[in-house]
Amino acid sequence: MKNRYDSRPIGIFDSGVGGLTVLKELLDAFPHEHFIYLGDTARVPYGAKSARTVERYTIQVADFLIRRNVKGLVAACNTASALGIGALRAHCDTPVLGVIQPGCQQAMVSINDKHSHIGVIGTRSTIASGAYPNTLALLEPQLKVSSLACPLFVPLVEEGWLDHDATIMIVEQNLAPFIKNPVDVLILGCTHYPVLKPVIGKILGKKTKLIDSAEAVAESLGKLFNNVIRPAKKGEQQKVEFYVTDVADRFQEVAGRFLQGLAVDSVDMVDL
Amino acid sequence: MKNRYDSRPIGIFDSGVGGLTVLKELLDAFPHEHFIYLGDTARVPYGAKSARTVERYTIQVADFLIRRNVKGLVAACNTASALGIGALRAHCDTPVLGVIQPGCQQAMVSINDKHSHIGVIGTRSTIASGAYPNTLALLEPQLKVSSLACPLFVPLVEEGWLDHDATIMIVEQNLAPFIKNPVDVLILGCTHYPVLKPVIGKILGKKTKLIDSAEAVAESLGKLFNNVIRPAKKGEQQKVEFYVTDVADRFQEVAGRFLQGLAVDSVDMVDL
Repeated sequence: MKNRYDSRPIGIFDSGVGGLTVLKELLDAFPHEHFIYLGDTARVPYGAKSARTVERYTIQVADFLIRRNVKGLVAACNTASALGIGALRAHCDTPVLGVIQPGCQQAMVSINDKHSHIGVIGTRSTIASGAYPNTLALLEPQLKVSSLACPLFVPLVEEGWLDHDATIMIVEQNLAPFIKNPVDVLILGCTHYPVLKPVIGKILGKKTKLIDSAEAVAESLGKLFNNVIRPAKKGEQQKVEFYVTDVADRFQEVAGRFLQGLAVDSVDMVDL
Repeated sequence: MKNRYDSRPIGIFDSGVGGLTVLKELLDAFPHEHFIYLGDTARVPYGAKSARTVERYTIQVADFLIRRNVKGLVAACNTASALGIGALRAHCDTPVLGVIQPGCQQAMVSINDKHSHIGVIGTRSTIASGAYPNTLALLEPQLKVSSLACPLFVPLVEEGWLDHDATIMIVEQNLAPFIKNPVDVLILGCTHYPVLKPVIGKILGKKTKLIDSAEAVAESLGKLFNNVIRPAKKGEQQKVEFYVTDVADRFQEVAGRFLQGLAVDSVDMVDL
């Protein structure tokens, strides 16, 4: 009989620290798995780069994890999911889970009406790719989808300007179209943005539901375990390894903001 | 008799578009030279990266220009100048001019008193390197030098938020130590910052002289022509070639802000 368990690690990657919001959810949901997180901190951010460059970097990052014998890959980065995942799936046999599809599915669950107005915010490259409206259109062609690039949100989060007046002003100006024409649901299409949830929520009001795809990814990974890959045994102890492509000091510092207190003990550096 | 002229190009590089402020000055000052500009737009920004990574990228970028047979290299990026230029000089025989030394020399010319208070602003990595205070201390050990990292200025400039209220607020908060303890001279230690000169000038007032190293670099290159490398013949027509490591669309768009109207006709992409 085929083994029901697979103790190999799950690889999870991002351009930098943003993917840690996804890792946090996965750690909560899967207490017996072994995770290897790789942040491409030498080449961060991906958000203003071209499809060609993001594809190339995504494959290099994934190849490092594949060499570590992972059983599955989680692209915990919206830009890599939007621009790089097609090329990655063509490149390798390892199952790959992105953040776009789970986020869209969660948005669908939150609406009551197929004519709902869904807003999407993300990096310049994610929005330009059209990945979110295209995926939503496949789920429900009659939705109204409006997208906005918010390129300053990532640096504000990275620098910890989370509730400063200047941040509120920048978020207000960026989201002005959604203040004028409210959306029922807003997909936070960048793993950095959930950190700005309080400010965004205050500006858009309670009628707009905010979708954080990190939670949705954990649910999708659970489904993947039933269908494509096998989970670790219940007795296994959870493990996490951290790798970055640039030196680790600042990663450890910023990681605290994303993992909400979970300690990042040791981080190793790799050249890609 | 040795030839007095050298028609080979001058290589100028930056992590992205910031170095175009330096190129602009060089184009004005040297109407007969051939310039090759390389922006490492795939891996921009360098400003929060480690010395090791910046060294590696600086050498890769310079090697591309050296293969193009340049007679001299201009590191038109403060972070590359602060962290990468030592390794680059050890790596190649081509004369290399950075932006730190010229900026410091220009600051020295602007002060009347060797006990003057000099402020330096730059990216996180430039400031952490101590390159500016170290260079200033060699020129005049009795100066008082205060440094401040301003990591949000680059994204604000790249996104064109040049005089928005939020920008004024962020600049004010970053420069608060220099409002409290005024400096006689402020070195704009990042090639992006001159674009924010109007806002910075308004906040610090007329008593603080702002130093933009781009002008100083043109002067230093003139001195290099007398001592180390030979200029092109007077009859030669000025030429510029542009290369980037990520696709060119956005480079062309943002370049306009930096070259102040000078058109960037064609940009080629290279893989490093």
